[in-house]
Amino acid sequence: MSATAKVSLQSDDVKYIQEKARLLRIHSLRATTAAGSGHPTSCLSAAEIVAAVFFHAMKFDPANPNAITGDRFVLSKGHAAPILYAALAEAGVFPVSRLMTLRTLNSELEGHPTPLIPGVDAATGSLGQGLSVGAGLALGAKRSGSSARVYVLMGDGEMAEGNVWEAAAFAQHAGINNLVAIGDINALGQSQRTMYQHDMEVYRRKFESEGWNAEIVDGHDAAAVMAALDRAKAVTDKPSAIMALTYKGHGVSFLNDKDNWHGKPLNAEQLEKALAELGTIPPIIPDDGKSYARKAVPVPPDFPAPADPDYKTGDIVATREAYGFALRKLAMVNPKVLAVDGDVKNSTFSDGIEKVSPDKLIEGYIAEQNMVALSVGLAAQGYVPFAATFACFLSRAYDQVRMAAVSRSSIKLCGSHCGVSIGEDGPSQMGLEDLAMFRAIPGATVFYPSDAVSAERLTEIAARTSGISYIRTSRPKTAILYALTEEFPVPGFKAVKQSENDAATIVAAGITVHEALKAYEQLKAKGVAVRIVDLYCVKPLDGAKLGAEIRAGKGKLVTVEDHYHEGGIGEAVISALADAGAWPTAVKRLAVDRVPHSGKPDELVDKFGISARHIVAAVESLK
Amino acid sequence: MSATAKVSLQSDDVKYIQEKARLLRIHSLRATTAAGSGHPTSCLSAAEIVAAVFFHAMKFDPANPNAITGDRFVLSKGHAAPILYAALAEAGVFPVSRLMTLRTLNSELEGHPTPLIPGVDAATGSLGQGLSVGAGLALGAKRSGSSARVYVLMGDGEMAEGNVWEAAAFAQHAGINNLVAIGDINALGQSQRTMYQHDMEVYRRKFESEGWNAEIVDGHDAAAVMAALDRAKAVTDKPSAIMALTYKGHGVSFLNDKDNWHGKPLNAEQLEKALAELGTIPPIIPDDGKSYARKAVPVPPDFPAPADPDYKTGDIVATREAYGFALRKLAMVNPKVLAVDGDVKNSTFSDGIEKVSPDKLIEGYIAEQNMVALSVGLAAQGYVPFAATFACFLSRAYDQVRMAAVSRSSIKLCGSHCGVSIGEDGPSQMGLEDLAMFRAIPGATVFYPSDAVSAERLTEIAARTSGISYIRTSRPKTAILYALTEEFPVPGFKAVKQSENDAATIVAAGITVHEALKAYEQLKAKGVAVRIVDLYCVKPLDGAKLGAEIRAGKGKLVTVEDHYHEGGIGEAVISALADAGAWPTAVKRLAVDRVPHSGKPDELVDKFGISARHIVAAVESLK
Repeated sequence: MSATAKVSLQSDDVKYIQEKARLLRIHSLRATTAAGSGHPTSCLSAAEIVAAVFFHAMKFDPANPNAITGDRFVLSKGHAAPILYAALAEAGVFPVSRLMTLRTLNSELEGHPTPLIPGVDAATGSLGQGLSVGAGLALGAKRSGSSARVYVLMGDGEMAEGNVWEAAAFAQHAGINNLVAIGDINALGQSQRTMYQHDMEVYRRKFESEGWNAEIVDGHDAAAVMAALDRAKAVTDKPSAIMALTYKGHGVSFLNDKDNWHGKPLNAEQLEKALAELGTIPPIIPDDGKSYARKAVPVPPDFPAPADPDYKTGDIVATREAYGFALRKLAMVNPKVLAVDGDVKNSTFSDGIEKVSPDKLIEGYIAEQNMVALSVGLAAQGYVPFAATFACFLSRAYDQVRMAAVSRSSIKLCGSHCGVSIGEDGPSQMGLEDLAMFRAIPGATVFYPSDAVSAERLTEIAARTSGISYIRTSRPKTAILYALTEEFPVPGFKAVKQSENDAATIVAAGITVHEALKAYEQLKAKGVAVRIVDLYCVKPLDGAKLGAEIRAGKGKLVTVEDHYHEGGIGEAVISALADAGAWPTAVKRLAVDRVPHSGKPDELVDKFGISARHIVAAVESLK
Repeated sequence: MSATAKVSLQSDDVKYIQEKARLLRIHSLRATTAAGSGHPTSCLSAAEIVAAVFFHAMKFDPANPNAITGDRFVLSKGHAAPILYAALAEAGVFPVSRLMTLRTLNSELEGHPTPLIPGVDAATGSLGQGLSVGAGLALGAKRSGSSARVYVLMGDGEMAEGNVWEAAAFAQHAGINNLVAIGDINALGQSQRTMYQHDMEVYRRKFESEGWNAEIVDGHDAAAVMAALDRAKAVTDKPSAIMALTYKGHGVSFLNDKDNWHGKPLNAEQLEKALAELGTIPPIIPDDGKSYARKAVPVPPDFPAPADPDYKTGDIVATREAYGFALRKLAMVNPKVLAVDGDVKNSTFSDGIEKVSPDKLIEGYIAEQNMVALSVGLAAQGYVPFAATFACFLSRAYDQVRMAAVSRSSIKLCGSHCGVSIGEDGPSQMGLEDLAMFRAIPGATVFYPSDAVSAERLTEIAARTSGISYIRTSRPKTAILYALTEEFPVPGFKAVKQSENDAATIVAAGITVHEALKAYEQLKAKGVAVRIVDLYCVKPLDGAKLGAEIRAGKGKLVTVEDHYHEGGIGEAVISALADAGAWPTAVKRLAVDRVPHSGKPDELVDKFGISARHIVAAVESLK
């Protein structure tokens, strides 16, 4: 399959790539032995591929390897990090001497790639996400008018991950023709042979079934890999897949295609033996201790204020609908804002952005993993993607959200249809663990608006916020609570009812604010005043400031949320108060305590213990 | 494609199926109109398919529709629930009169199917999971010597979910030849046309690329669907896919292939018009209010005590390794116990079970979504599957875990390599949100052993426990803390250090128990006694009982965990104490507060603030 390729390439060029592959092998073996851990054999199978991609196919500026104009490489098989680092060093992104700091506490060269490393756009290491990230980078380049191409290297083991095939279907359908997927088919997984071993035709068929250009090459024939990369460049109507037959540990006789070498470094003696097989060995230059970490990853750009919320007295508007209005207004003032949808845009109201321009919405179909990891790629190219689906279905992409945090990405996520208040569709459609999920994402900002005004304002704030932002919206239509000019600081909350003589403080958010307001009236009729706090920002949370509100309610606290007990508002509030030493004197936490059921929204809010009636009872129980 | 089929089938048989399809349409339309919500047009496209599967292909006992001997049907496109319920009623599983209770608070016929309904094995409604569940049911049948077949009906929209393709690859590779996937290719998603619309060849190619038998039929030609189902039965060497070209809303002229009808019931007038097109209409029999809910779903069977833990004084053993020992011992006394792996069995030690018999381990390769949903299918057939991977990679299957809870499934999950204590591999491999995830699963039991003895005992308890059980294991080797005969009640914890004069109580689990024990010695050297609580069971948690331990430490509490702050041990403890009114007088919560880094385990435990030194400082700060 590579015969013609060999003829068309200059032998000097091939020799250059072969020499680079040899150096990449040496660096990978040395660095992992020095680290005492790592995956050298997973590097060795990819040596010719990585050498050919970096030093034959790609064009980028080593001084600015994450530029929109440059070709990009995503190491989806992140455990082969040492060979990526070796390639970046050989390309001049940082000195080769730095490679020997691999996996140490003070080095940016971690066990798996993160965007702290120049030339890396997203963290990898949770397998099967790289093709989605690459699709996002490629789409971002295209949308920015860049002719850059994106190369994604996957292992065969990770191609069992469904995320890969979500990405493959999406990329073809979205016309992403500047994307090249390369399979390092070394047939050896961690614990055993892979599903298809060296049945290369399966991989070709799978990519072809998705409408990709696909071919099979000998992954250790540098000329063949180079020629395949050249052919992929010539394909302009679809993405290309190059499935490379390789051997794990290739290049070192006692590692080649051997079992039980996954994730094991060579000891000093084995290293010496291996290097003896690899020809002339360059000297090790001592590391000077200087960090080459990126100073910053892309953060959302500033933009002019969008149009204010626009509601009339007495309007009732769902927060999910207000999210759509906000997206539309944002897209009018910030050209980088995009919506990413999972075929629910008419439920999440992501389709609001289509009124600015249909191409502001990227339709990801029903594939939440790809939706999130694609967004990470878009954000790395300077876009501000807002990916939305039902809150419960974001659980489908929790690993991708987790990895987005490791990527220091600033993607925005919106989960609609939270809680039992969605009603008849039943528990499979109710987001009742999303606050727990997103609160446990480091650096995340978690918003939970209770009315349309706050929903719009918080969506705008999300567009300005670094790190992952999550906006939880509700299905039911609710009253407007705030003035159109109200501001919503972060962290922050609003005391929507307060007096000098409050008998308790109720902390609520979303639809439970409206239940609390009903409870307020019922208690007022009984001569009891209560304070109601709208916790529109669930994370971060200022426990000391909130503590003052609790003290103003005589230290008696009721929390009420359309979420399970664990990890939600009740635990967030109690923990923040505990950390601040601002103990309530008594507390009652109302939340959903079991798998709910279908029924009318009001019936369910009542049956699962978070309605006005239960709030009144909780306040009275604290007396 | 159906010409020959028509000849070979008796016309009376075909008429019977056509009549059933007509009735299913009528029931689906009526029930959704009565409910005022639901997805009637998604039912109509599937009418001939469901009629042919239930009344031509399947053999099962309506009085016992979940029996291991019976064929099974999984409605992966769960929003078409009304037609499933209609088929179950027509088959005699419950009365037709019950259909009109759809989506009401007191009916088992929820908006999306759950196993509260006889004949349903797993909840659906989060799309793209049904084929994995079906693979588990089919594999469970085969392992039990049953010749039953499993039929899974998917929508085309949901086939964009990667989980579908994980399941397709797995089923073929695992030799599951009693599984039939049916695609209801109606070309209309929720918010727009599907990715491939009626390009039927794409679906055929995709299944064929996975090694399946695949064919295309006219989904509204009852004879053609019947013949295809017959042909699928004759295929004995692989699973079969029948891709049926259908139209959403088919059978009613003003619904057929029309946009903007997704998830919308007909109003009374529209219903009347629709029924007029559907021939003779049976009368509605009033529901008698009697529930037909299943009394119980499968729970883990009882079994004799496995062999005791077997360690010597001074042994150091990782809890993950002890999990492997426990699995092996369990499999020797409980034939239903299985391990399900994601190609990390030599890291999670799931491979321990292979020493009993290699076929006790089901290799799922790197596809966590399938691993979990497959386990739900196995559990529904009476097995006790223990699915394990790195804790962080269970986040990949959080939606499947969430749905397992809605399924009232008793699957067991083990997450190894929790926290920063894994060391050099870095943040992408560290489970730091898994406690938040699993605590927020209703009814889940969450174990976090700190030594090998408790790891073995808790794994045994998990095998006896109904609902979802999660076992969090650690990578580092740690000392044995408990006597080999120690018992571990649920809920429960152990005070591993205590005195009459404790100055504070430290609540820890897993590796932080060992850090706390070091802190104990350091504090003791300073003349300070502290109480150390090993919170081996994180959920459920008895706040009142734990409160007594905190009071015994003068009300001063330090929590320390190898997990993020949110949703983990600190929040669990503080919330349980708050609910019990057992306030500490002062608290300090030590947990990981940002994305960690690569480094040596001890370095990271210290850098991220959860080492003995930090515990000592925390105790001293509370003075």
